[in-house]
Amino acid sequence: MAEIPIRFGIIGCAEIACKVSRAILLAPNATLSAVASRSIDKAANFAKANGFPPEAKIYGSYESLLDDPDIDAVYLPLPTSLHLKWAVLTAQKRKHLLTEKPVALNVSEFDTILKACEENGVQMMDGTMWVHHPRTQKMKEFLNDKERFGQLKTVNSYFSFFADPDFLKNDIRVKPDLDALGALGDAGWYCIRSILWAADYELPKTVSALRGPVLNEAGVILNCGASLHWEDGKTATFHCSFLSNLTMNITAIGTFGTLHLTDFIIPYQEQEASYTTSTKPGFNKLVTGWVSLPSEHTVTVDLPQEACMVREFAGLVENIKKNGAQPDKKWPTISRKTQLVLDAVKASIEKGFEPVEIVS
Amino acid sequence: MAEIPIRFGIIGCAEIACKVSRAILLAPNATLSAVASRSIDKAANFAKANGFPPEAKIYGSYESLLDDPDIDAVYLPLPTSLHLKWAVLTAQKRKHLLTEKPVALNVSEFDTILKACEENGVQMMDGTMWVHHPRTQKMKEFLNDKERFGQLKTVNSYFSFFADPDFLKNDIRVKPDLDALGALGDAGWYCIRSILWAADYELPKTVSALRGPVLNEAGVILNCGASLHWEDGKTATFHCSFLSNLTMNITAIGTFGTLHLTDFIIPYQEQEASYTTSTKPGFNKLVTGWVSLPSEHTVTVDLPQEACMVREFAGLVENIKKNGAQPDKKWPTISRKTQLVLDAVKASIEKGFEPVEIVS
Repeated sequence: MAEIPIRFGIIGCAEIACKVSRAILLAPNATLSAVASRSIDKAANFAKANGFPPEAKIYGSYESLLDDPDIDAVYLPLPTSLHLKWAVLTAQKRKHLLTEKPVALNVSEFDTILKACEENGVQMMDGTMWVHHPRTQKMKEFLNDKERFGQLKTVNSYFSFFADPDFLKNDIRVKPDLDALGALGDAGWYCIRSILWAADYELPKTVSALRGPVLNEAGVILNCGASLHWEDGKTATFHCSFLSNLTMNITAIGTFGTLHLTDFIIPYQEQEASYTTSTKPGFNKLVTGWVSLPSEHTVTVDLPQEACMVREFAGLVENIKKNGAQPDKKWPTISRKTQLVLDAVKASIEKGFEPVEIVS
Repeated sequence: MAEIPIRFGIIGCAEIACKVSRAILLAPNATLSAVASRSIDKAANFAKANGFPPEAKIYGSYESLLDDPDIDAVYLPLPTSLHLKWAVLTAQKRKHLLTEKPVALNVSEFDTILKACEENGVQMMDGTMWVHHPRTQKMKEFLNDKERFGQLKTVNSYFSFFADPDFLKNDIRVKPDLDALGALGDAGWYCIRSILWAADYELPKTVSALRGPVLNEAGVILNCGASLHWEDGKTATFHCSFLSNLTMNITAIGTFGTLHLTDFIIPYQEQEASYTTSTKPGFNKLVTGWVSLPSEHTVTVDLPQEACMVREFAGLVENIKKNGAQPDKKWPTISRKTQLVLDAVKASIEKGFEPVEIVS
């Protein structure tokens, strides 16, 4: 039964918006209805280059898109420092909000955005794609399996890429007035999310930044790491960087099992994605080899992860729009926890690597 | 040209000594000449079970083995707390020393053992096997390659295994009077060694234990972690544990490359071993997949890694014995650095996770 798809407007023509435009086209319950840029030519070119339908509207200002009554939801790929203003306005205009990450510069800004969404009855979700990949669900089943994985003990998450000199000079992610959280906000967001994901979104008790973060002249983080510690003894570490080779690993170790993958944010291939598990392996008698090897699991994909994200978001919006449902709280709650931990890492760096207690 | 092999005596019939006995048999320049136990029956049974040649001598005391003029070298698999006494005596009896790890309970004891070896002109080496695997050499070539790997930025090393209740109650590695360093001395030794190996044995500036170590009632570490920090901004983290699933990973990230393996201490199979590298991978235009995948490299093995270790050690002994060479300093230096970092982790735990400066 064909449904009327959720109509998306995109505010800003960032590179990531190309990928999300395609995702909106691919998602069965979403459609590209408008794009806005401060330059109407740029918006028109973006629409043309990204397969917008002919009837899609082109706006030369963000406000005019937000005033369009034929838009249900806004995708916001603007620099983080602009999120507060435009996310709040999006909510006030009663548009549902799919925003790029990091959601805000800090949890106080986050809460202002969340409050605006709640007061206006709109759905909020951040643009972390990998959690919507069907592989992520399969991996979670393993982590939740008391016999195959047991109780989580430790997680390590790495996300780094080696930025070229142009990026390190000109990208918005190294500019204090645009994406002031730098590598922590960009790459670290994924690491923190992956750790919280593995820990069933239980917040850690303390967060300690690792020594040796690298900041640029403007004070923006280019490279940092942290350790997280939970009440029950679980620990996690992560490293995020613009200064080292492209790497995206999760290793999660439980009492009985280990989960491992090396492409968690962007799967190597779109059509299928793999991960490795082991459960209670052991050694042969002389300890010269293993008796059971880790096994690789491959998940085939009908929709790319970003289209799964759009489909999930549009489904929640549809439920509000058609059935009068309340906005779902799961995704904003997960986002907020990510932002809380991110704030704590930054605070720990500023406090000379002292542990920072997480207060929810 | 056949050489006269180096004659080994083994002091103590620990389980690990079975594996090393086989290694001595397999190494082309070594032979099993004697075994000593406090029980002569135990020694005799050990010799029988482990393929000792008929002419091998069986001793009912460690001292008598050390007094045997037909022994060149001693393999010492005793609990760590006994190393000081027996390693020093081994050296004083002019026997070369291949000792299990951790070498000592702390660097002060280590230095006493090292001094005894130096004063008596005997070779010292610890029993860390994986560094002698041909795979390790190939991986090191990758790490040293300025174009394929670049400059090391961060390392994560994991070694854990899930000990059963009997181990946690009775194994020497949970006893304060036997292996007082617990999981840090046993599993953590490998993690620390792997980090130093990746860092070309450059000592870190500071070592900070992670919060949440688990100690048993007697104060022996069952689970802990640490972060290491170098002057140039390099960082490393590790986790060692008796309380989580068998896992042994190294991930080393450089500016241009990443090294990754998941069986670094005991390769999955004896005949061949693999590792993964990537150099400057990237994404496709839409960032929906990678343009170059990590590549797997397999190294085939003619001798198991523990036999490579024995061969290396026996070669150094042979050079001293036949050519009057000085004992090699490389291996004791590497051992001592491992012990220094291990001490610092322990000190940091005792100081409430304060960073501990490494003073060489």
